[in-house]
Amino acid sequence: MKQYNALAEHFDKIADFQHLGAICGWDEAAMMPAGGGESRARALARLQVLIHDLVTDDQVPGLLLDAAGESLNAWQQANLREINRAVVSASAVPSAIVEQLGLATARCEQAWRIHRANNDWSAMQPLLQTVVDISRERAAILANEFGCSPYDALLDEYETGVTSAMVDRVFADLKTFLPDFAQRVINQQSAEPVLALTGNFSVEKQKALGMEVMTALGFDFAHGRLDISHHPFCGGVPDDVRITTRYNTDNFVESLMGVIHETGHAMYEQGLPAEWRRQPVGQALSSGTHESQSLLMEMQAGRTREFLQFLAPRAQRAFLGGESNDPAWSVDNLHRVYTRVQRSYIRVDADEVTYPLHVILRYELEKDLISGDLKVKDIPEAWDAKMREYLDISTAGNFTDGCLQDVHWPAGLFGYFPTYTLGAMTAAQLFAAATREVDDLHGAISRGDFSRLLAWLREKVHSQGKFLSFDALMIGATGETLDAKYFKQHLTQRYLQAK
Amino acid sequence: MKQYNALAEHFDKIADFQHLGAICGWDEAAMMPAGGGESRARALARLQVLIHDLVTDDQVPGLLLDAAGESLNAWQQANLREINRAVVSASAVPSAIVEQLGLATARCEQAWRIHRANNDWSAMQPLLQTVVDISRERAAILANEFGCSPYDALLDEYETGVTSAMVDRVFADLKTFLPDFAQRVINQQSAEPVLALTGNFSVEKQKALGMEVMTALGFDFAHGRLDISHHPFCGGVPDDVRITTRYNTDNFVESLMGVIHETGHAMYEQGLPAEWRRQPVGQALSSGTHESQSLLMEMQAGRTREFLQFLAPRAQRAFLGGESNDPAWSVDNLHRVYTRVQRSYIRVDADEVTYPLHVILRYELEKDLISGDLKVKDIPEAWDAKMREYLDISTAGNFTDGCLQDVHWPAGLFGYFPTYTLGAMTAAQLFAAATREVDDLHGAISRGDFSRLLAWLREKVHSQGKFLSFDALMIGATGETLDAKYFKQHLTQRYLQAK
Repeated sequence: MKQYNALAEHFDKIADFQHLGAICGWDEAAMMPAGGGESRARALARLQVLIHDLVTDDQVPGLLLDAAGESLNAWQQANLREINRAVVSASAVPSAIVEQLGLATARCEQAWRIHRANNDWSAMQPLLQTVVDISRERAAILANEFGCSPYDALLDEYETGVTSAMVDRVFADLKTFLPDFAQRVINQQSAEPVLALTGNFSVEKQKALGMEVMTALGFDFAHGRLDISHHPFCGGVPDDVRITTRYNTDNFVESLMGVIHETGHAMYEQGLPAEWRRQPVGQALSSGTHESQSLLMEMQAGRTREFLQFLAPRAQRAFLGGESNDPAWSVDNLHRVYTRVQRSYIRVDADEVTYPLHVILRYELEKDLISGDLKVKDIPEAWDAKMREYLDISTAGNFTDGCLQDVHWPAGLFGYFPTYTLGAMTAAQLFAAATREVDDLHGAISRGDFSRLLAWLREKVHSQGKFLSFDALMIGATGETLDAKYFKQHLTQRYLQAK
Repeated sequence: MKQYNALAEHFDKIADFQHLGAICGWDEAAMMPAGGGESRARALARLQVLIHDLVTDDQVPGLLLDAAGESLNAWQQANLREINRAVVSASAVPSAIVEQLGLATARCEQAWRIHRANNDWSAMQPLLQTVVDISRERAAILANEFGCSPYDALLDEYETGVTSAMVDRVFADLKTFLPDFAQRVINQQSAEPVLALTGNFSVEKQKALGMEVMTALGFDFAHGRLDISHHPFCGGVPDDVRITTRYNTDNFVESLMGVIHETGHAMYEQGLPAEWRRQPVGQALSSGTHESQSLLMEMQAGRTREFLQFLAPRAQRAFLGGESNDPAWSVDNLHRVYTRVQRSYIRVDADEVTYPLHVILRYELEKDLISGDLKVKDIPEAWDAKMREYLDISTAGNFTDGCLQDVHWPAGLFGYFPTYTLGAMTAAQLFAAATREVDDLHGAISRGDFSRLLAWLREKVHSQGKFLSFDALMIGATGETLDAKYFKQHLTQRYLQAK
């Protein structure tokens, strides 16, 4: 295993540099004063070049070839596969295109902050055109390398092995199901008003409750932190996971559920195999799988009546100074707050029923953008047409709350959107399996005892890293490949039956 | 300037990697949960190897040679000189010795935390012996390379151009002056009791006052932060300086003066020449010069009666909720608190009068350790003898508060101790010059207006980086080279005359 070991040592070194980048990236968002931005951007860009140079180092292909002939166990073989994938991806695109795209997305993303605020599509269009043009060129190169369609090559960067044909199939199911379903839920909920919660929602109190809940979920504070940033995220490294949130002192419910969401991401990282987390095979499987872990905590477990039984008295103590019979703070009202469905413009504020429609809209448009069937100039019209079709609301002339609302396209992240809904479906299927397999899961959740759920996820998902394919992981955990029926069952059970 | 530019670009790259190390090092001390320690240590060690490899890169000596023949301005020439110094230093010691010393100091430093707590010299002695042995071997190699004595080679790493002959001269002066002087001050102060300060010294209130004072001193919060760590320090990079303190909720005076000390360090970094701070010539001149900037703020300006006139009402408002006539909170009593002299065991707790005696003791012992005139086994006895001679107190049998109190020797930092007192003398000489040159300096300080003092320091010290030698810097700023008389004048004026 001499060549394999040399290769593993090389990627161990890369993991060290990625560690420094992850911590400095977290610092940039959570700690850095504004004046540090320019030199930080330069230092992180330099690190990216170093890491790219190490991944595509001249000696690596030879080592890969030689190592493949050595006697390796199954994890080592899987690690070779993942190393190879990383090397091929990093080598496929000429560095001139990588640089052009980096420049174009940096410009487009900066301009987006201004033009979105000003509802200015015409200023945005040429900048986005450049990003789309270079992204299409890059996708064509990757498609040629991997023998697939350009869009599938982009999708594969976030969801290895998942194709648009598979996504089309599951999304088609949701697309017919959700619009009518949402209407029925909205009709039913119109008779169930939500009571407003008032109290002292200081940052300190919200943070203390958030940390109490994180501890119950199983977050390990010896290997992580909770801080504040403008856009909540999960960063750091598996041994030291950094999650962030933002607080609204008028309302605690969104931030608290955001903390639960990021805690789901964090526990996936904390559960990656200790022996392998410094190698490519020991990383998280995919973006959708990552999202499944956050949504499993936030949407599947976190919004159950059982969890809210655990949460309600703790929230009362945190914000009212003691337990209360105020009906606004009852489990029933909290459940109504946390399961309210409404059609809205903004994806990130959407509930779990309408959220997939926002995603499907974007997925369909970006697929056509990459194939060339949709022109950049026609995005606003296409956006409005799909919003009216799926959500019965119009964004005509409202770019801010329409096609300019997301940073993904300005940042060149084509292929990312579907992972949100793949994650939601995966979460539903995993939680259904856990409910079958873990003794008294819902009873334990009502007591704030997540230990057995976490142990099940550790075994079935977290500790697998990238060892299994997504299909194999799902079969191992749930007995079958991804199927939208679990997500639909979950919605039906929560929103129409269990009233 | 083609070769010079290539060299500058190479060191610009190194500055980027040093940036990542500085931020991750700060994070380790101020933010990191304990469980992240192992992988952080590994990542930072890997970065050190990368930086060492870049400094000693094969192409650098050729570039240095070629660049020296190009047409360069004075700063570029000085930068070549500093690059050459960095390369020679990094190349001189074989990597086997660097590794051995790294291992030995890591072990010795870890063991020191335990053995110091247990007052266990006999367990410490063999570990320290190894560190001393390797340090002597390393010093001999450097001495041979630079044509000086082994101890001078170590001293030169912290104070370029300063020799033990120079240090001996200024320390001899202090050694005869201070013991009697301290006795006279202690006698005089025995008739002036200090009143205890009581109040609400919560961390939040202390931090708010600390930031108010930092702002008055001229710390730029757009390019820096104040946080908490076990050992206060100044880290980060010039564009983003991170200082830390620790808070005692029973007493605010030490922590506040600690913040002022670190602010002095920080403003030096924030004032390094913007155009050059990513190159070797744009770094801080030396450890002693750095310490002069912290001590100038803490000891020279911060403990003047004028500054305490500014501070007293602000401290009253912060901790008592409003201004007060309580005599404990008067300027007079604060001045007594901040100028109290007493003989004590611990260097870091010592006042400015007795502090140099702690330093001279260590300087004399470490010089003899490196020359071989003092054996490790004889350190406790030698320590006790000098403590009795200089401070009239004995540490016989008390290793915890004697020769085991500092981390420097376990960490292999021989040659560092004298920089504390060089810094104190430099601070006194600079402050005396500023008092002469800046119009109404003390009046401005009484109003909390440090702008003209800072402007003077920016011009004379901060913006010079490593452009000038220490002697040239002192001549430019004060008209003469370092002279202990200013420090003695300062002590005499503050402690015996101005009562």
